[in-house]
Amino acid sequence: MNATNPVENQVRQALGSWVEAACAKDLDRIMGHYAPDVRAFDAILQLQFEGVDAYRKHWETCLSYTSGPMIFEVEDLRIETEGDLAVGHFLNRCGCVNEQGETQSSWMRGTVCYRLRDGDWKIVHEHYSAPFSVPDGAALFNLKPR
Amino acid sequence: MNATNPVENQVRQALGSWVEAACAKDLDRIMGHYAPDVRAFDAILQLQFEGVDAYRKHWETCLSYTSGPMIFEVEDLRIETEGDLAVGHFLNRCGCVNEQGETQSSWMRGTVCYRLRDGDWKIVHEHYSAPFSVPDGAALFNLKPR
Repeated sequence: MNATNPVENQVRQALGSWVEAACAKDLDRIMGHYAPDVRAFDAILQLQFEGVDAYRKHWETCLSYTSGPMIFEVEDLRIETEGDLAVGHFLNRCGCVNEQGETQSSWMRGTVCYRLRDGDWKIVHEHYSAPFSVPDGAALFNLKPR
Repeated sequence: MNATNPVENQVRQALGSWVEAACAKDLDRIMGHYAPDVRAFDAILQLQFEGVDAYRKHWETCLSYTSGPMIFEVEDLRIETEGDLAVGHFLNRCGCVNEQGETQSSWMRGTVCYRLRDGDWKIVHEHYSAPFSVPDGAALFNLKPR
């Protein structure tokens, strides 16, 4: 998690803390990373979620799908920063270890847009997804980073 | 396409021009909007595309799926700007009119990250997707903005 400039390092730390919160399934800590007016495009169920209350309910639903320990690993994170605006994009292995001890995970893509608000980097926009196949429209859960 | 500040207006114009190029299925004009080192997370087939050459091939594939006039409409575009960095996020009705004259389209989500390079706003990162359903993993093509 090294970076070449202090602002990028701050954003990497904020993103790292959000990842840790997700791995811990700590809903309050996860939601502490979002701005009140966040607009999220998540991988499942709806086109978008407007505002932190709606997104909290959705995160709760997402966490309810994970039976055992959560897997939420960020790879190949790249960050753009300028003033109090920053964007991080990364690949993400997401899933859980189920009750039989089996790992169930797939590679996803994440884009997170931050604003510095009152000294803290808060997520104002998030886009998280899996690609789908053509023509059958099935999400592609077996892709791996090249 | 009005905006409250000149930089936001420039980004709206760049994005509008990219949308027009997509509607015209003009591959050269589409690709002119991307930075050489763009990293794209597209809705279909692969996790990511690295660099404008790889992404051009993918756009060519995408355009080959559209038999008749292209539908590519941006709604609810919101833009964050700071210096020479900008992010736009929007909903997008995407599809085509097929050979039987039938409209085939669905609502998608787009996030586009721009950098000002040599006086032009260029896309350095793009994330485009449809959400999928749980547990069957089928892309949700019937969702509509609320």
